[in-house]
Amino acid sequence: MKDCKTKDVIWKLETNVDDCSGELLGYVMELLLDAGAKDAFYMPIYMKKNRPAYLLTVLCAEQDRKEMERILFRETTTIGIRRTQMERTILPRQIRTFASSLGEAVVKVCCFEGETWVYPEYESVRKLAKEHNLPLKEVQKLVVREAEESLNREEINV
Amino acid sequence: MKDCKTKDVIWKLETNVDDCSGELLGYVMELLLDAGAKDAFYMPIYMKKNRPAYLLTVLCAEQDRKEMERILFRETTTIGIRRTQMERTILPRQIRTFASSLGEAVVKVCCFEGETWVYPEYESVRKLAKEHNLPLKEVQKLVVREAEESLNREEINV
Amino acid sequence: MKDCKTKDVIWKLETNVDDCSGELLGYVMELLLDAGAKDAFYMPIYMKKNRPAYLLTVLCAEQDRKEMERILFRETTTIGIRRTQMERTILPRQIRTFASSLGEAVVKVCCFEGETWVYPEYESVRKLAKEHNLPLKEVQKLVVREAEESLNREEINV
Amino acid sequence: MKDCKTKDVIWKLETNVDDCSGELLGYVMELLLDAGAKDAFYMPIYMKKNRPAYLLTVLCAEQDRKEMERILFRETTTIGIRRTQMERTILPRQIRTFASSLGEAVVKVCCFEGETWVYPEYESVRKLAKEHNLPLKEVQKLVVREAEESLNREEINV
Amino acid sequence: MKDCKTKDVIWKLETNVDDCSGELLGYVMELLLDAGAKDAFYMPIYMKKNRPAYLLTVLCAEQDRKEMERILFRETTTIGIRRTQMERTILPRQIRTFASSLGEAVVKVCCFEGETWVYPEYESVRKLAKEHNLPLKEVQKLVVREAEESLNREEINV
Amino acid sequence: MKDCKTKDVIWKLETNVDDCSGELLGYVMELLLDAGAKDAFYMPIYMKKNRPAYLLTVLCAEQDRKEMERILFRETTTIGIRRTQMERTILPRQIRTFASSLGEAVVKVCCFEGETWVYPEYESVRKLAKEHNLPLKEVQKLVVREAEESLNREEINV
Repeated sequence: MKDCKTKDVIWKLETNVDDCSGELLGYVMELLLDAGAKDAFYMPIYMKKNRPAYLLTVLCAEQDRKEMERILFRETTTIGIRRTQMERTILPRQIRTFASSLGEAVVKVCCFEGETWVYPEYESVRKLAKEHNLPLKEVQKLVVREAEESLNREEINV
Repeated sequence: MKDCKTKDVIWKLETNVDDCSGELLGYVMELLLDAGAKDAFYMPIYMKKNRPAYLLTVLCAEQDRKEMERILFRETTTIGIRRTQMERTILPRQIRTFASSLGEAVVKVCCFEGETWVYPEYESVRKLAKEHNLPLKEVQKLVVREAEESLNREEINV
Repeated sequence: MKDCKTKDVIWKLETNVDDCSGELLGYVMELLLDAGAKDAFYMPIYMKKNRPAYLLTVLCAEQDRKEMERILFRETTTIGIRRTQMERTILPRQIRTFASSLGEAVVKVCCFEGETWVYPEYESVRKLAKEHNLPLKEVQKLVVREAEESLNREEINV
Repeated sequence: MKDCKTKDVIWKLETNVDDCSGELLGYVMELLLDAGAKDAFYMPIYMKKNRPAYLLTVLCAEQDRKEMERILFRETTTIGIRRTQMERTILPRQIRTFASSLGEAVVKVCCFEGETWVYPEYESVRKLAKEHNLPLKEVQKLVVREAEESLNREEINV
Repeated sequence: MKDCKTKDVIWKLETNVDDCSGELLGYVMELLLDAGAKDAFYMPIYMKKNRPAYLLTVLCAEQDRKEMERILFRETTTIGIRRTQMERTILPRQIRTFASSLGEAVVKVCCFEGETWVYPEYESVRKLAKEHNLPLKEVQKLVVREAEESLNREEINV
Repeated sequence: MKDCKTKDVIWKLETNVDDCSGELLGYVMELLLDAGAKDAFYMPIYMKKNRPAYLLTVLCAEQDRKEMERILFRETTTIGIRRTQMERTILPRQIRTFASSLGEAVVKVCCFEGETWVYPEYESVRKLAKEHNLPLKEVQKLVVREAEESLNREEINV
């Protein structure tokens, strides 16, 4: 893995929601992610007539935009969806599985300017924390430590 | 009403506000909407020097942009306003008035992919709720129900 | 007006709302304030199942608590309302009307530790700003300035 | 079911978190709810040194308080947990299963001041929406409508 | 200073952060501003898996974009940064130092549509408030008042 | 250090602020902390008349309550401060300085149920990160790792 960055273009879709419940919005987030959204999230906003509301944002690829809009029009009460295109700088990442002292663990390895960083994969450390009845934060620390040692020892060219 | 979507382009104006009071910002929202903003809203943001602040956003048509900026420069303490253009996908809506069992009611009728949805107009159901001393949520439900029955019965081509 | 503080006791009612729309909550705030709430406000909260939600808070006197709960149970979908009693320290305030150069203006005068502060009443300065087509922030400043001069000149014992 | 309210007492635990990630906090919410918390939620707060942070709140019964504190001390980096006791007014609710036109559905039935309200159970309508490929909001509406008709028809004394 | 506005173009960088602590984010804001960001701020967002998270935004000039991205990749755990270009309308401002009755004070003077506004510079009024043991809000008011009188008296063409 | 928890009682002061700027509130937080507040923080709230506002919270000891109220009345525009007393469960912590490979470092050591956790002190790791031009997150990790090894090696009875 060279020390590199790549670039892509994504759509950012936005819509203000003041006439749906939070319960419904939690469901919609799940549908958007299942349908291929790169990300979907909510921000609290203050709207007219004293309305506490949310700004729903979806990040997606060009080929998924129509499907995302379809989900929003079908599932929420929105009647208008705004969009802009955004460039993105991305660090390449390598997903690596290794044998930690707690069992098989998955980490994400990134390089940037000659440095290598190891980030633990959530579902993997969550599983180990449950199995061993350990705090998640301790498992994250242990997995990163052992993954770093493993990378150094093997003089891996990531 | 065909099952269609239309597209337009709007401006999104943004400014960070950390030296106005919320009282003033409530007033400014009112001015912006009265002057033709399609929408105006606030988001809580965290700024430097421990400042709780707001991001003020205005959505408006090209012909209204100058007036929106004028209001912001005159009424708030901002000295810089950012902007981007956004495309929008919009569901056409038909505003329809009908005789509900509680009195005249207004609903918004939208079509999308062959389905027809009825959304109650806020000011209309608010008025009925006050007149009949009923919970707004019950009036919304009743108005939508009766509007849907009315649409079905009359086999309306919306 | 002596340099004093007084103390009272109020109820703080709270309920988490994840199955009402913001539109409905804007209406409920209005009902609560009309029914005598000392204050009513919303906070954005993050609930289970990815639900963006709100914590609704009402501050009220003992004699109004039952009515506030009645409004919440009738108008929202809540089925549980929490409450605690809070003590309060309050600065006495005097509402004073005086002739500003823009017309009659209303200010709130407070004393604390020998200092006197003048705060403009929102509805009063809002009216003057609209009448004279001036920025609200300039009217607030002018009204406070003239009220302070008036207090000094008359050597008023507030 | 009489038109009644009941009262209980719960603990409200609070802690400010500025040195945990959101990823960890999402996990902790799950642990707290699995361990019997009546509710657990986050609020965005502004802390010293420009820190965006969260106030974590747990609502729980007296017998569960120790376990909640144990989870917080073990899983987060907090070293202090505040608490107050709160009274609660609760509407009794009856969980009822009935045969809707889409299949078996579960609703919550509440009474207050002689009125009866029907609220759809999330997991139940979610399942029907997935099975029938219908918008959740339409399924919620249909289930409430049919449950209300069923309650009226049978002249049920809930 | 003519009554004018100018226009420029800036980059808006964005990244969602759910695996950093608020403590770290407070530090990163400081680094970004020290490195020349025009502004850097956080918004609370709701992400998948019940994660309370933040949207980090940086506003910067074209020539600083690479350095801002470098800071974000090095210091946070982000592996992707989105960006859009935004136009900006800016009011020219003149920084003016004058002798207030409390000591030397700095204000920002802006013109717009023939009106001149004076805004107090934070660090300057903060210093005076500390030196004289006065409330900051009173010092702000006094400094603006005296700066306005000074501008009028001298018939300054700002 | 025994595996223990202690208990104390603190005051929680609250006030809603809709007529101060964020700039002023950032200053007030600093004053409160300098005057001995255990913590001071803001929450975004939605108030009447479309006002984005803040709930200011101060946590303090009984002997500091009067001074906190004095700061709030003098520096903000509030005219009422609510308060409740809260119990607290606290983990004892030991501040320990040790020689890390990057230089002297300070950590907080806590015990709970037989486990020992090490948390890095922010100002200490911040200083090392600046001196060595390293990412703060890497310094935090290194300092914790070396502190844990040091604790284990010396078989310290913390």
